[in-house]
Amino acid sequence: MRAPLLNPLASLEATFKRLHHFGHLASMAGWDQAAMMPPKGAGARAAAMAELQVLMHQTLTDPQLPVLLDAAEQTDLSDAERASLAEMRREWALVNRLPQDLVEAQSLAASRCEHAWRTQRTANDWQGFVGNFREVVTLARQESRLLADGTGATPYEALMDKFEPGMRESAITALFGEVKTWLPGLIATVMAQQRTQTVLAAEGRFPVERQRALGVDIMGLLGFDFEGGRLDISTHPFCGGVPQDVRITTRYIEATFAPSLMGIIHETGHARYEQRLPRDTVHLPVGRARSMGVHESQSLSFEMQLARSPAFLQLIAPLVKQHLGEQAAFEADNLARLFTRVKPGFIRVDADELTYPAHVILRFEIERALINGEIEVDDIPALWAEKMRDYLGVDVAGNFENGCMQDIHWPSGMFGYFPSYTLGAMYAAQYFATIRRQHPDLDARIASGDLSPVMNWLDANIWSQASRWSTDELVSRATGEPLNASHFRKHLEARYLGV
Amino acid sequence: MRAPLLNPLASLEATFKRLHHFGHLASMAGWDQAAMMPPKGAGARAAAMAELQVLMHQTLTDPQLPVLLDAAEQTDLSDAERASLAEMRREWALVNRLPQDLVEAQSLAASRCEHAWRTQRTANDWQGFVGNFREVVTLARQESRLLADGTGATPYEALMDKFEPGMRESAITALFGEVKTWLPGLIATVMAQQRTQTVLAAEGRFPVERQRALGVDIMGLLGFDFEGGRLDISTHPFCGGVPQDVRITTRYIEATFAPSLMGIIHETGHARYEQRLPRDTVHLPVGRARSMGVHESQSLSFEMQLARSPAFLQLIAPLVKQHLGEQAAFEADNLARLFTRVKPGFIRVDADELTYPAHVILRFEIERALINGEIEVDDIPALWAEKMRDYLGVDVAGNFENGCMQDIHWPSGMFGYFPSYTLGAMYAAQYFATIRRQHPDLDARIASGDLSPVMNWLDANIWSQASRWSTDELVSRATGEPLNASHFRKHLEARYLGV
Repeated sequence: MRAPLLNPLASLEATFKRLHHFGHLASMAGWDQAAMMPPKGAGARAAAMAELQVLMHQTLTDPQLPVLLDAAEQTDLSDAERASLAEMRREWALVNRLPQDLVEAQSLAASRCEHAWRTQRTANDWQGFVGNFREVVTLARQESRLLADGTGATPYEALMDKFEPGMRESAITALFGEVKTWLPGLIATVMAQQRTQTVLAAEGRFPVERQRALGVDIMGLLGFDFEGGRLDISTHPFCGGVPQDVRITTRYIEATFAPSLMGIIHETGHARYEQRLPRDTVHLPVGRARSMGVHESQSLSFEMQLARSPAFLQLIAPLVKQHLGEQAAFEADNLARLFTRVKPGFIRVDADELTYPAHVILRFEIERALINGEIEVDDIPALWAEKMRDYLGVDVAGNFENGCMQDIHWPSGMFGYFPSYTLGAMYAAQYFATIRRQHPDLDARIASGDLSPVMNWLDANIWSQASRWSTDELVSRATGEPLNASHFRKHLEARYLGV
Repeated sequence: MRAPLLNPLASLEATFKRLHHFGHLASMAGWDQAAMMPPKGAGARAAAMAELQVLMHQTLTDPQLPVLLDAAEQTDLSDAERASLAEMRREWALVNRLPQDLVEAQSLAASRCEHAWRTQRTANDWQGFVGNFREVVTLARQESRLLADGTGATPYEALMDKFEPGMRESAITALFGEVKTWLPGLIATVMAQQRTQTVLAAEGRFPVERQRALGVDIMGLLGFDFEGGRLDISTHPFCGGVPQDVRITTRYIEATFAPSLMGIIHETGHARYEQRLPRDTVHLPVGRARSMGVHESQSLSFEMQLARSPAFLQLIAPLVKQHLGEQAAFEADNLARLFTRVKPGFIRVDADELTYPAHVILRFEIERALINGEIEVDDIPALWAEKMRDYLGVDVAGNFENGCMQDIHWPSGMFGYFPSYTLGAMYAAQYFATIRRQHPDLDARIASGDLSPVMNWLDANIWSQASRWSTDELVSRATGEPLNASHFRKHLEARYLGV
């Protein structure tokens, strides 16, 4: 930070470039931990990564930084520079609005709670879990009030803002409230229709190497750049690395081919967003993906909009047969039925496209009430059971393992994230409504292997825009209107009812 | 560094622990770069690693550090603490004796020279190479004079000290001088004997997966801890990672099984040293491997002393057949002949056990004269050709690619390293002379699969000792005498002449 006041923006950019380099190391160490590291490496890795966190925290809490941010705001900036500066301030504020002792207490409470949860969950031990979880919630409420203070945000909104900048709690409540008016009915209608449908399950075992080869071929079809990324294996699939070197993972179950296939396509959506972020701002906050919801909109554009469509399944059916062997289940029309089968269940991550939003809405309603202080931890199981019954007709009472203890988010102190999943699905439906308007022959082109209408649109409207605009602006510029859930409803009705 | 003067040693330990964490990240990023990274990740990786280097350099040049080192020396310390402090000062001095502008100039010159060398070498372009190389040598000479200044060391010795602390140039000159009196004659005699020997070459192709499985089995036999390490693939095999998580690599050529087999065994020797370094000092300089020569003594204990012995080959012949298929070439006695075949050649890294020291002695003599200012860069090719003729009877005149341009060491500015290879071979021979004295039934035990006499001895005498003692003390404590090259000669004569 030499001569900071002469060019405060340049000084800030240098600092954020350092942070970007530290982030690169952290991201790669994290990928390695999940995909490569042998068990005895865990302690040393955790210590090394903690050192890096300290360093990044020190860099972001340097007292010079707010001085530079204020000074930069006074200088003559282009619109793009002003957008960049705003993202820097956002990142700075996220770290500096919280006292260090709260951050440390949260980290400690979350790691204690999450660690115990791993065994408590399988033991269905809600009472044991609550012992740790109360502290996590108390601290998250403190955090939410500090983040909300003076911003006009509700406490829950302040937490959600970390993942969905600018998104209002009232907007989500309205969106999800509207979905609740038609979703349970739609699920019931679709299930009734599907009862008479014949779907062939794929039979046999599918060796890991064959599933991997199929996945690699489809990643290629979807434009994944293998010169700038990899596909590996981890227990929990994710997309990591850095834009210049994107690492996605999956896991394989030899008894079934669908989860790894759809998992790879999902992560490839995340990956292409990262791989195509503009290189000139890759080291700056403004150069990152816009939000978790927008990120999820990419994975769901790939997995839900594209990959579960009859046209795409027609395109890849020959590849599936080539790698996994000929069988009637791999005919395109059967694949389309397989991949749109609706079946309400306990587990969010196993849910189909149609029932998934119900899992999210339930979690949103509970965590919002919890953080805003309208309910307490002890109220969760009954609420969970009630909502599972109402939204999905599923009885989960007393089953904590597959109920309110199933997700890692809450035990690790992550509140406000769940809406992003369904926001992503809604954005994706809205993008495809736009693409389809521009390309009435979209399905024919997809079926023939020409994915360019989709890829070019996403590239021009989302990937290349990084965080240049607010999410609202981004979506409006891309589709001509802000988020509109009716596209999501129309998509589901078209796909599942054929209307 | 709170209250540094109250407990200067504890403050120093905290600083070196931070450096250890940074080193962990650097080591893993380096492994990833060589074994995993896709090509387009290179630029971002280099920038992130450079940031880490800056950070480590800043930490080691903190003006507090010499104050703490001096203060710690005045406190009441145990012998072990004093040894630890000495290693900290050594590491500090290596970085702080050189002005930053020289370090930067060296880094720039070396990376320019090495980069160009990659194409110049294959083009046999000595004249082009010299254009960059002169600068590398000029800067290395400056470095050597600064490091030697006031220490009583010769310039070359000062560079060598980075890799072989405490080793004297005169001692190497005497050792290598003695080897030169008998080595060319021994090579000639052995070649004459081997001329009448029948050796079967292994035939067929050996798929990578089979070679890997054989390697993994043999790593297991040699005690490699797969819970704390991995085997992967890279262009240039190496042993990296951290003691808690050791990453070795190899490369496979399907037309031949020997290089990857011996390469894996070699790296496993390095790996076990790292894996068995004592955990209580793993974050301190005193907890690291003693020197490059001692490190090489572990890989050569495994590869040369153990793995090329008839007893070990008798032990592994069934495994070789199991993984690569039955053939007469895989009988133990044929393997023993295969792995002790002597054939002088141009290339150091392809050299057999007997001719290898000649390659090292030649390089030592040339680089010592070069750094000490007795010869100039232009003198190298003629000297190289002359020594190759004298020591190995090989004519390499005009062939720079496979002559003086073959190694990466000089273009990358690394002078003083070559002796470590042959010092390692000599140490290893001396260890095994001691082990054999303690276990007259050594060969029978090895052949029966009991490697404990070797492993326990190395563990107790070398691995667990880290840098607690100087190399001289380490070797004397372990074998009862300082380095004595006669063990090396006896080993070679016993193995190659049967005397």
